[in-house]
Amino acid sequence: MAGHSPELREALFELLLRLGDDCLILGHRVSEWCGHAPMLEEDLALPNMGLDLIGQARSLYTYAGEVEGNGRTEDDLAYLRNDRQYRNLLLVERPNGDFAHTMLRQLYFAAFMEPYWRATCGSKDETLAGIAGKAVKEMAYHIRHAGQWVIRMGDGTQGSARRMKDAVEELGHYVDEMFGTDAVTDALAAAGIAPDPAALRPDWDRTIEMVFSEANLKQPQIAYPQRGGRDGLHGEDLGHLLAELQYMQRTYPGLNW
Amino acid sequence: MAGHSPELREALFELLLRLGDDCLILGHRVSEWCGHAPMLEEDLALPNMGLDLIGQARSLYTYAGEVEGNGRTEDDLAYLRNDRQYRNLLLVERPNGDFAHTMLRQLYFAAFMEPYWRATCGSKDETLAGIAGKAVKEMAYHIRHAGQWVIRMGDGTQGSARRMKDAVEELGHYVDEMFGTDAVTDALAAAGIAPDPAALRPDWDRTIEMVFSEANLKQPQIAYPQRGGRDGLHGEDLGHLLAELQYMQRTYPGLNW
Repeated sequence: MAGHSPELREALFELLLRLGDDCLILGHRVSEWCGHAPMLEEDLALPNMGLDLIGQARSLYTYAGEVEGNGRTEDDLAYLRNDRQYRNLLLVERPNGDFAHTMLRQLYFAAFMEPYWRATCGSKDETLAGIAGKAVKEMAYHIRHAGQWVIRMGDGTQGSARRMKDAVEELGHYVDEMFGTDAVTDALAAAGIAPDPAALRPDWDRTIEMVFSEANLKQPQIAYPQRGGRDGLHGEDLGHLLAELQYMQRTYPGLNW
Repeated sequence: MAGHSPELREALFELLLRLGDDCLILGHRVSEWCGHAPMLEEDLALPNMGLDLIGQARSLYTYAGEVEGNGRTEDDLAYLRNDRQYRNLLLVERPNGDFAHTMLRQLYFAAFMEPYWRATCGSKDETLAGIAGKAVKEMAYHIRHAGQWVIRMGDGTQGSARRMKDAVEELGHYVDEMFGTDAVTDALAAAGIAPDPAALRPDWDRTIEMVFSEANLKQPQIAYPQRGGRDGLHGEDLGHLLAELQYMQRTYPGLNW
């Protein structure tokens, strides 16, 4: 981050929170499946995907603390902010619902983050580029794994196809928010630090189209897409999630293992 | 409590925690329905029942703090103990499940507490007798309200009867624990402070039989009843419940409205 102007550092801090929050919240959601997946192999795969995301969150928060320069650690950022201070996409805080729902959410997020991290590998910020280099491979795996389930269920029995169609209808409302831009994304894109999210839409559409054509699914028309997560405006579900996520740290402040 | 020996005070404190925890946890569970009940009138009735229980919990905790004599308030006892320190019955921490499930749980608990409080009205401990005098009327109402729903659903459509039968099967495992006795209940019964829970079983059976005969339901044979709540051995669900219940106090310690 050496050489970034104060304004750019502020934008970078905000971006790192957004990305870190996305990863932590989705990682926590996925971890809720632990012990409940429909088969043993999947009960290993899901927590592994959760750990990928939580690992990314740790790197992002640690770097965010450095960029901010106030001495906050990854734990401070994860455990000591309330819901209005969280910056994650609404998509990732959505409850797990059934297995179809969880897998489609994972595909949607990974299909966005894979090209995001790929573009970030060439970031002018070396630390961020380093994080991206590891994360891009993990997201490619998440696309493959979740995509296979979306195909298997969408192109499966009448029951599995209906469940996947329900997931497509519900999660459709949370797609557009991923590609939203504002002063933060504009400044970082102009500085060559992070990609313009809007520019990743064709990549995302291509991935989803490829999966959906095999899965006999169609993207729905969404009249009123939902937004607000980037500004701290979340659904009730995030509060419940944070209550569980932060319980140990809130109950035993300063706790160390 | 004037005149109680130290041993008796200790037993009384333990009893007050048990009863307070039963009321708080069930009150919280019932409050989770707020805004989600199947019809508007029930959406008012359920939170009202929750408030009855939380009101009882407040009186019981406040008195427990006095009996303990260490300056702990109702808030300390409700918000600053962890799950292993909670003494509630497993029955009351069970997740709401569907409406049939919630109503049967309410009937089971109220059919126990109504005769419990009735007997406690004659307690040699005047404060406890005072709490009982108010609570007994509330529990009589809960029996009536929940009992009507158990009858309506058990003797209703094929679908509602199936749901009520499922609830009877599942909750049957948590009935016996209500009537459990130990050194605490023995000491307090001998001192004329609180009734022997085991002695209330015929009352409970009579109430349930009366409702079940109209509802076309039968009590199941339970080979392995569940216990442990009175010793702080709870299911995973209580931890999740406390995470939400205690979040505000844990996040903003010493919080006042």
